[in-house]
Amino acid sequence: MNDGLISQGSGTGAVAGAESILAPPFVERRAVLACAAEIQERLHRLQRTLAEQAIEAALIVQSADLFYYTGTIQQSYLVVPAQGEVTLFTRKSAERARHETPLPVTPLPSLRMLPDLVRERYGRVPRRLGLELDVLPVNTWRRLEALFDVAESVDIGPWLLAQRAVKSAFEIERIVAAGKVTLATMERIPEFMSEGVSEVELAGRIEAVARALGHQGVVRMRGFNEEMFYGQLLTGVSATVPSYLDTPLAGTGLSPAVAQGVSFKPLQRGEPFIFDFVSVIDGYMADFTRIFSLGPLPVQLRRAYEVALRVEQAVVEAARPGVTCRALYERALAVADAEGLRANFMGYGEGQVKFIGHGVGIELDELPVIAPNDRVLEEGMVFALEPKFVLPGLGAIGVENTWAVTASGLELLTDASEELRIL
Amino acid sequence: MNDGLISQGSGTGAVAGAESILAPPFVERRAVLACAAEIQERLHRLQRTLAEQAIEAALIVQSADLFYYTGTIQQSYLVVPAQGEVTLFTRKSAERARHETPLPVTPLPSLRMLPDLVRERYGRVPRRLGLELDVLPVNTWRRLEALFDVAESVDIGPWLLAQRAVKSAFEIERIVAAGKVTLATMERIPEFMSEGVSEVELAGRIEAVARALGHQGVVRMRGFNEEMFYGQLLTGVSATVPSYLDTPLAGTGLSPAVAQGVSFKPLQRGEPFIFDFVSVIDGYMADFTRIFSLGPLPVQLRRAYEVALRVEQAVVEAARPGVTCRALYERALAVADAEGLRANFMGYGEGQVKFIGHGVGIELDELPVIAPNDRVLEEGMVFALEPKFVLPGLGAIGVENTWAVTASGLELLTDASEELRIL
Repeated sequence: MNDGLISQGSGTGAVAGAESILAPPFVERRAVLACAAEIQERLHRLQRTLAEQAIEAALIVQSADLFYYTGTIQQSYLVVPAQGEVTLFTRKSAERARHETPLPVTPLPSLRMLPDLVRERYGRVPRRLGLELDVLPVNTWRRLEALFDVAESVDIGPWLLAQRAVKSAFEIERIVAAGKVTLATMERIPEFMSEGVSEVELAGRIEAVARALGHQGVVRMRGFNEEMFYGQLLTGVSATVPSYLDTPLAGTGLSPAVAQGVSFKPLQRGEPFIFDFVSVIDGYMADFTRIFSLGPLPVQLRRAYEVALRVEQAVVEAARPGVTCRALYERALAVADAEGLRANFMGYGEGQVKFIGHGVGIELDELPVIAPNDRVLEEGMVFALEPKFVLPGLGAIGVENTWAVTASGLELLTDASEELRIL
Repeated sequence: MNDGLISQGSGTGAVAGAESILAPPFVERRAVLACAAEIQERLHRLQRTLAEQAIEAALIVQSADLFYYTGTIQQSYLVVPAQGEVTLFTRKSAERARHETPLPVTPLPSLRMLPDLVRERYGRVPRRLGLELDVLPVNTWRRLEALFDVAESVDIGPWLLAQRAVKSAFEIERIVAAGKVTLATMERIPEFMSEGVSEVELAGRIEAVARALGHQGVVRMRGFNEEMFYGQLLTGVSATVPSYLDTPLAGTGLSPAVAQGVSFKPLQRGEPFIFDFVSVIDGYMADFTRIFSLGPLPVQLRRAYEVALRVEQAVVEAARPGVTCRALYERALAVADAEGLRANFMGYGEGQVKFIGHGVGIELDELPVIAPNDRVLEEGMVFALEPKFVLPGLGAIGVENTWAVTASGLELLTDASEELRIL
């Protein structure tokens, strides 16, 4: 690998500085790129896993994984042998990839040529090949298997996700930066909230603020059929409908075609407006929820909000390296149960989900999932914790922050008052 | 199948009217849902294909395909036997699916139960099963194959896409409705264009207008790793960079993480602002491009724009049922070539793409692709035709409309002046 081609802080933002592409450097705010040392460390950790699992090489093609291991999402095939140097074969655009990754870029004129180029580079093609079988479409996988005459393809998805769950200091800085866009966006909400404004109009105005601050728009999810558009900006009963989405709140959406998110419902006095917002900056995201309303909220919702804060507190107090997700989940359930709100916790009826938090980073559905599973918290993990209650006929309420696991407990990455914002 | 549960025009929009979910019907603008007859016709056409191909049954799970064949994207497994009645098994939310589809909904408590429920319903499980192998992740497919003990799974992706390429009158109405949102949004652009505004801030304001008009946000693409956020709202040289995307213009994006779309580049006088916008309403989209600028554009760009209009005219004059995509593509190339602009047509250098148009509907990358292929235009096909030129150092320019193929030629679905908007 090639060191120091791009170093942290000297990132030139997208392809600015690329004289062959764009003449003057026009980017006022610059994207922050991962430095070569960071990329190397990530690749070395993957190589250790491949060696342990006796996988000759991994072939990585999905955008989020490519971004993590190379810094670019240009159409590429990243070959990571268990030992030795990695090669980034780029189909399109190789010219652009050179400005986006600290790795050397090998142009790939056509996919058909890949096996020959791999043989030329490594002396042979891998027989036992690691692939992202959790996301690769069957036809794409079959084509790769046939091209390489693979004896066995091994699903490396779980290892990639486990590795990506533990963030570096660099990644945590990016997540904090995303959270800051959310916090700055939130400050503008009172300007836009008026009786009768539709959810979708209100959302559009809020989204425009986030865009002006550099929100990249695209919110990536790994799961098949999963989609997310900024988050869930819902009012009153809109937040109480069950959904195909694996989220406590999903909204009705503007039609069954999208089936989540905002609708044409007008904002009314005395109902919660849920600002559940995902900002994405330089590829990294933070997830965050606060509650606004025009005028006071019904006592049942206010009480549920107090319980949500207690659930959060109970989980945060218990969370540290070595604690299982299950222990945290059960602790949260116990608090909701003790308050008689278990039936309303994390959704209601068919809409209830079985988790209280989820990893965030490059994708919204990363590990750990704070749910009844035996995964253990590790230092560097980052997750959104989102205790929420759904009260049919009234609305939903709750709180969400993004946290990093440190040696001694959790560090708050989205620091803002948790008071209800009653306007 | 169950007729008339939901009839066209009486659609109640998302889940409004669903008393068990939401008490008062709050939706001011209502989503337009496909009627039972439309859904039945789509399913019957699919069944004819299955019978011809000796496929016992298809199992459809991807959101866009589910929406097309059922009207709902609730997490479902649609079983379509080659003969007989279809069954929509819904995992989550069955309650909600009942309000979104005219088909009867069979709740599916867990995926593991699906083979038994299929056996119960049809007397056996299919041995030769049609699946969407172009989009299904390998792990999902393996799980389904194992569950059903499938002898052979057949890729039905190409047939679904060929069927979906030919739109009904109902679908064309939806695409026109999406186009109207784009045209109404465009009228507001002059308010937002000022020297020095960043691309991303300008985009955010335009996007907010479309949202207030009901833009669903999510723009679906079928291809692996493909993403699109509203379109490409690019200024000057931003539109000239090559990209991983298979589009003539892609932009630098805000960082290599997204690698397309708007950047922080400020709008300058005398450069094109490309309004390349995809509106999505009730699940259907239109694709459209017009050019704005603050002050006059350089003569080379103005000349290229005239050529783009001539390319459009030449293709529109030749297009009718029976004509191949190749013939249209070559005609377009001939016009660009005669004007000495072939090297700049549909991108420049590594960024050049080999098509001039693409099908639109529920996904942005539908058939037909107007490219060197032998697919023949059929009445009811809808595609975006987008002759564009990239002039390095200056910017990009072009025009795009969405067209429907009629018996006698093309019908324009996005009717707006093609004059350059010089402010």
